[in-house]
Amino acid sequence: MHRICLIGAGRIGQVHAGNIAAHAQLELSWVVDHDPETARALAQRYGGQSGSLDEALADPKLSAVLIASPTDTHHELVLRSVERGLPVLCEKPLDLDFEQARESVRIAEASGTGLYLGFNRRFDPSFGRIHDEIRSGRHGALEVLSITSRDPAPPPVSYIERSGGLFRDMRIHDLDMAYWLSGETPAEVFASASCLVDPDIGGAGDVDTAVVVLRLPSGALCQITNSRRCVYGYDQRIEAFCSEGMLRAANERQTRVEMANDDGFCREPALPFFLERYAEAYRRELQALVDALDGKPCHLTTGQESLLSLAMADAANRSLGSGAFEKVTL
Amino acid sequence: MHRICLIGAGRIGQVHAGNIAAHAQLELSWVVDHDPETARALAQRYGGQSGSLDEALADPKLSAVLIASPTDTHHELVLRSVERGLPVLCEKPLDLDFEQARESVRIAEASGTGLYLGFNRRFDPSFGRIHDEIRSGRHGALEVLSITSRDPAPPPVSYIERSGGLFRDMRIHDLDMAYWLSGETPAEVFASASCLVDPDIGGAGDVDTAVVVLRLPSGALCQITNSRRCVYGYDQRIEAFCSEGMLRAANERQTRVEMANDDGFCREPALPFFLERYAEAYRRELQALVDALDGKPCHLTTGQESLLSLAMADAANRSLGSGAFEKVTL
Amino acid sequence: MHRICLIGAGRIGQVHAGNIAAHAQLELSWVVDHDPETARALAQRYGGQSGSLDEALADPKLSAVLIASPTDTHHELVLRSVERGLPVLCEKPLDLDFEQARESVRIAEASGTGLYLGFNRRFDPSFGRIHDEIRSGRHGALEVLSITSRDPAPPPVSYIERSGGLFRDMRIHDLDMAYWLSGETPAEVFASASCLVDPDIGGAGDVDTAVVVLRLPSGALCQITNSRRCVYGYDQRIEAFCSEGMLRAANERQTRVEMANDDGFCREPALPFFLERYAEAYRRELQALVDALDGKPCHLTTGQESLLSLAMADAANRSLGSGAFEKVTL
Amino acid sequence: MHRICLIGAGRIGQVHAGNIAAHAQLELSWVVDHDPETARALAQRYGGQSGSLDEALADPKLSAVLIASPTDTHHELVLRSVERGLPVLCEKPLDLDFEQARESVRIAEASGTGLYLGFNRRFDPSFGRIHDEIRSGRHGALEVLSITSRDPAPPPVSYIERSGGLFRDMRIHDLDMAYWLSGETPAEVFASASCLVDPDIGGAGDVDTAVVVLRLPSGALCQITNSRRCVYGYDQRIEAFCSEGMLRAANERQTRVEMANDDGFCREPALPFFLERYAEAYRRELQALVDALDGKPCHLTTGQESLLSLAMADAANRSLGSGAFEKVTL
Repeated sequence: MHRICLIGAGRIGQVHAGNIAAHAQLELSWVVDHDPETARALAQRYGGQSGSLDEALADPKLSAVLIASPTDTHHELVLRSVERGLPVLCEKPLDLDFEQARESVRIAEASGTGLYLGFNRRFDPSFGRIHDEIRSGRHGALEVLSITSRDPAPPPVSYIERSGGLFRDMRIHDLDMAYWLSGETPAEVFASASCLVDPDIGGAGDVDTAVVVLRLPSGALCQITNSRRCVYGYDQRIEAFCSEGMLRAANERQTRVEMANDDGFCREPALPFFLERYAEAYRRELQALVDALDGKPCHLTTGQESLLSLAMADAANRSLGSGAFEKVTL
Repeated sequence: MHRICLIGAGRIGQVHAGNIAAHAQLELSWVVDHDPETARALAQRYGGQSGSLDEALADPKLSAVLIASPTDTHHELVLRSVERGLPVLCEKPLDLDFEQARESVRIAEASGTGLYLGFNRRFDPSFGRIHDEIRSGRHGALEVLSITSRDPAPPPVSYIERSGGLFRDMRIHDLDMAYWLSGETPAEVFASASCLVDPDIGGAGDVDTAVVVLRLPSGALCQITNSRRCVYGYDQRIEAFCSEGMLRAANERQTRVEMANDDGFCREPALPFFLERYAEAYRRELQALVDALDGKPCHLTTGQESLLSLAMADAANRSLGSGAFEKVTL
Repeated sequence: MHRICLIGAGRIGQVHAGNIAAHAQLELSWVVDHDPETARALAQRYGGQSGSLDEALADPKLSAVLIASPTDTHHELVLRSVERGLPVLCEKPLDLDFEQARESVRIAEASGTGLYLGFNRRFDPSFGRIHDEIRSGRHGALEVLSITSRDPAPPPVSYIERSGGLFRDMRIHDLDMAYWLSGETPAEVFASASCLVDPDIGGAGDVDTAVVVLRLPSGALCQITNSRRCVYGYDQRIEAFCSEGMLRAANERQTRVEMANDDGFCREPALPFFLERYAEAYRRELQALVDALDGKPCHLTTGQESLLSLAMADAANRSLGSGAFEKVTL
Repeated sequence: MHRICLIGAGRIGQVHAGNIAAHAQLELSWVVDHDPETARALAQRYGGQSGSLDEALADPKLSAVLIASPTDTHHELVLRSVERGLPVLCEKPLDLDFEQARESVRIAEASGTGLYLGFNRRFDPSFGRIHDEIRSGRHGALEVLSITSRDPAPPPVSYIERSGGLFRDMRIHDLDMAYWLSGETPAEVFASASCLVDPDIGGAGDVDTAVVVLRLPSGALCQITNSRRCVYGYDQRIEAFCSEGMLRAANERQTRVEMANDDGFCREPALPFFLERYAEAYRRELQALVDALDGKPCHLTTGQESLLSLAMADAANRSLGSGAFEKVTL
């Protein structure tokens, strides 16, 4: 049994809390939140304790820390956990500041405790299946990877302003997918983007519609398309074109019902957003944490890999300015 | 080059005329119709002659007769053609009167000229594929055959009154499919039906919604469902459940376009009716006629096979009265 | 919080135990099993107690009993629970003996405690959606209901011998669906069946492949097809043909991945069996139990409704002998 | 009735000949080919004459010229036809030399006779439907257009060497689609490409796998992916992401059959290549020619529009060298 300290009792923290409680090898020991009442309520529901970070980290039985608090708290919380010798699973991004993120990774690596980032898509059953199929080699070499990733609706501009921009906030997931599925570190990144959804996003200096091209060392190409708005649900699809075959993952729906009338044959929209689409991925992510704690190989994104995603996002941002391929520099 | 005399220049006659003209080994030599003007116009369009039946049959170069005139003219036209020594492809049904149909078949068989009925579904690419797959043996033994066959809208009651009823008029196609796909002559037929679409159909002594069960000698079962109304197009599907696999043919649509919005993902309705759905089948049917004329095996329904379909339809009608399995008697 | 006594710690009991533990308003208080060790292990995992039926029923805080033990124990367990004044959710069937089942229902109804049967399909998200769509009236009147229900592989003959036969054991779910979806009590049942999968099933006096036709009071028709073997997974589909539209529920798969190569485009088989296919249904069934305990309307099958399914299964069995429609008599 | 002179009796010429013969308002009057025997055979089959270009152009009844001969003959044939005052439908590309193509267009425009290029995809029923849906405005503004276009197998290197390269030979269709569907002239083109399919293609100085990004004046983006090899058939898909909905066209298959076994559910590959996939498009293209000859609006690509596609292809080629957005210059 691994005992977890959960930091952050908000929306995503609650998802993790429920999954920890349901997992046969995990126990929700502590919940820490800047609002003590929220922490207490969540801890009580699943049989854990709540308290300050100091109190929690003082518990000698703790096995790991799961950080689901706001991005600007990640750095300190990672350092505190690493200092205490505990492995960390931290929601992405590690930090909006690349140097500070690199510092977190450096310290965690030096200490030898594991630092993992919560890139949920690696644990989506369909995307995971594509990963395994590519690795199996039975479809030949990957030649073109196409990733579609569209959010149902733009967040408030206040969020946009603190998000680090479309590429660091949203597309970073797709960049991690490109790396993880291909097994290659992209050499060059090209990006083109527009503000078509909401002029206020443009006003905040960001874009909401984008296309990215990655060039991989093998010559394989990756194209990604993003939007901050999608009227038919959370659009999350991947297509891997290989020399001997093609693999693609369609969207998830709540039911398998199709209705037919004189307008045609209709199925329901895609699942609304990430909590629904990646519900199973969040459960599998915790199994990966258990594997990591047990010393087994797992697909959690390492701190080092998370720096790569950030570097790709930054190269994409530079490409927006130059209109040309930009090298990915770590 | 085989020279065809087409009798009947109506809707279905026009389809055949165009397909004859487009076929490299067929020539539309004569068009005969009770309305000479209609015959003349159709003949002119495709380079043939028009005239009376006597004039046409007097042409020594004729290879075959294609009968697409009203059902009550079939018997005489078949006899005249057979007498002239010409193979006949006749639109179904051969005759609403079973004894008269049997007589046509007897005479044609005695004369040695071929008599074929135009059961178009045998030439539908999807249904033909299912036939070939079943025959290939690679899916094991056929165990349950499910046929769905729904017309978009009921015909006028005046048509219903002369049609021979739902089973002889419409379901007879499905009964031929059951026989042809399974390769077995059904031993028993059960039917249950209602009048749900139009009370005037019931007033005319017919039904418009039905379910039929056939029991085949091997123990395999067949279920058929029919309706005289279907708001999403002409619903024509078959599912063959075999011991080692399942084969199914979905409906045809005009395009492959799917549209997504907040109502969901929609594709267009099924093709509207038989002229559209079986356009390719009508073309392939003529190729089968060419094969027959060339002495090659083909999938045209023989006169004898058409009697079997009629006998099955009659057994289904008897079952409606008895509420029990009825034997198919030829 | 409702406190549940679970009787039966086998495969399906374990599913219920996990779902009870995960439900915010349910608590697994007691686990009873003929094997005390199995009961103890399951109770311990989810924080409940284990013991004899007497010990459990003596707990004054119990809210309800969930019976997941072998069929031949149901009658006594229902009576004991009812005597104790506790609502019961019992796995189907209530009893293989119709009179004894009727007696259970009579006593439960007399006592005023609720007696519900676990017909899981009512809680399948897709089938539930079809139910709600039919009820909404926006698709017009239901005219033909088609139910496909095929098990992946036949059970051991020893199971078949004690199962009550295909119709009472397996098809009873489909008969409940026909009643629940249509909202009508079938007036007549016709059945035809064969033994095509395993001759030993025939040797045990049972069939393994069947087609059933139900006639509903409104004139609507229902066709059901069953098999004890299906190589592409657990085949569970429903199609509801209505005057203004059609609703259909396709099979569930584990992922949304499609692979394409020179053989074509392939998706994975249907989920393997009921534990996977109805995993979500089992969760929703417990929510229905909570609703029932809270006095709210729910879709649990009542004892009285379960008698109807049994009566339909018996009429189907009689029809196998008579080859004719048989009336459903309660 | 419009009388057509067909130049070129090869593979694509034969397709046009059959479609001309089958069209009620077109007549195949002349067939001209560098091989007189081939011309004679094709003319005879459909009732036309064959002869030299001079003989054909001397026919005072000619309505139009359809050029389906090798690319390097187009310029002269267009000039001769225009000189004779006849509208021309010419297979793409007009010419591999941009200046010469511009000269053809200039002369045709000066003469006032129509010059059209055979971009078949505009007449594909599915792509045409997407075009009409975008234009209808009911899906809002086009934001991202994604075009997938993969050939089943690379042509011989000898063909590659004379083809003008991947972008001018193959992708030019996609560039025309991008322009036609969006209704916008792309401002900038970015391209990245590799040689992954056949090293001999690289040896010939060409690429076989590519990704292109177009930036449209409205800010909308277009991504195109191409490959010279695709094991699952001719992969031709389009997805138009709009502010209020999404439209996509899937591949075409020969039948609607799906097979299921323990490997899963499989449908057949996409149609093998352009003659099958665009068979209906070629028929509709001729209807567009009839419309053009009748003075009605049609969707044929004009000579001017074909220059735009060439200019986009050239910009893409320049981008391969620069690694940056290149402006489209006419």
